[in-house]
Amino acid sequence: MLKKLSRTSLADQVYKEMGDMIASGKWPSGSRIPSETELMEQLGVSRNTLREAVRAMVHVGMLETKQGDGTFVKATSALNAILQKRVQHSTLLETIEVRHALDRQAVALACAKRTDEDLATLEHCRRLCMTAFREQDLERFVRADWLLHQAVAAASHNALLTDIYANLFEEIQMSIASTTEFGDDALVGHPALLQAIRDRHADRAVQEVDAYIAVNKSVLRKHDLDA
Amino acid sequence: MLKKLSRTSLADQVYKEMGDMIASGKWPSGSRIPSETELMEQLGVSRNTLREAVRAMVHVGMLETKQGDGTFVKATSALNAILQKRVQHSTLLETIEVRHALDRQAVALACAKRTDEDLATLEHCRRLCMTAFREQDLERFVRADWLLHQAVAAASHNALLTDIYANLFEEIQMSIASTTEFGDDALVGHPALLQAIRDRHADRAVQEVDAYIAVNKSVLRKHDLDA
Repeated sequence: MLKKLSRTSLADQVYKEMGDMIASGKWPSGSRIPSETELMEQLGVSRNTLREAVRAMVHVGMLETKQGDGTFVKATSALNAILQKRVQHSTLLETIEVRHALDRQAVALACAKRTDEDLATLEHCRRLCMTAFREQDLERFVRADWLLHQAVAAASHNALLTDIYANLFEEIQMSIASTTEFGDDALVGHPALLQAIRDRHADRAVQEVDAYIAVNKSVLRKHDLDA
Repeated sequence: MLKKLSRTSLADQVYKEMGDMIASGKWPSGSRIPSETELMEQLGVSRNTLREAVRAMVHVGMLETKQGDGTFVKATSALNAILQKRVQHSTLLETIEVRHALDRQAVALACAKRTDEDLATLEHCRRLCMTAFREQDLERFVRADWLLHQAVAAASHNALLTDIYANLFEEIQMSIASTTEFGDDALVGHPALLQAIRDRHADRAVQEVDAYIAVNKSVLRKHDLDA
């Protein structure tokens, strides 16, 4: 028997399809999504159904409607949207403390579980950091450093940790890193941390985490970012 | 000049008001929310506006509509809904590893920041655990133990950590605890952990965390919960 689709379940489907477009990067963060007319045609749904799905995604925080300018991608997933919102109500110190906890666990797990592919990815990220540092390109450096930290989290082979990490700390990484100059040369590309993970030496890896978190906290104090 | 309210911004307001009803516990988790007619009257909005807000909350996972039976509260906040959904796609081992990370940080911070009120709350929770244990009331014990763990997290005085903790681990606490008998008597009410927090002895407190996480992991292996 055919199941009659109600408008709500159609809107659910549209919500899911648009979520997939965003998650896959076909609609990148910050981009404007296609017009209502285009989407109605592409998805084969009525204006009302489409609007319901779009409004739900605006409520969640994945999309943002700018009056007269269209609708834009604001977050890569519902988790991303909600964690971003939550972090905006935290102090930087609170966020660093949570990051410290997850970083310590990530490197400990990475020491046990890292594969050769993980090491290759980490090495690639380290080189990106080094290049940006040599060229004194702060913006590229900040991005490369964030890629490296996410790669360390991913080497934990704990998808929940990796996912929370990526969605919770992007903003803090950018805000702390962009307030500082390149900082301690020895931390560029985190060679000692990567060596510890290569050697599967969890104690040393955790010490390296403690060291750069201490640097982050001192940047925070210096710039009085938590006032 | 008066700002003309569009249906969307009215729906936003209704979404927020209903979110407040849920967050405040006036609409408790699992309860049925008032009928459309009642809500239209209470909130002074049209059926369409109300439905838009309700549907958005269903998409987020805060409400659940059961055909012919009404609409029910499914999660206490958007963060709660999204983290619950995310945890459902994780293995128990992944969740325990993340919990281990946050527990270690929580007790370390609690040793530095706990107040006398925190200690009183912890002691109260410990007594609830002891009573439930004496009466061999497993359900009450599991709840009391979860209250105690949340109180430890709260003693960190890091609201982000506390919030993620409470929303991420409720389910795992229930599923692990309910598969086990009362387990190790020495862990009932976590007296050694509480003493370490009272003494502000972070190393000992972290050791206690490591000990009960090890117990959790062994329960997991014993019941093959991660298969």
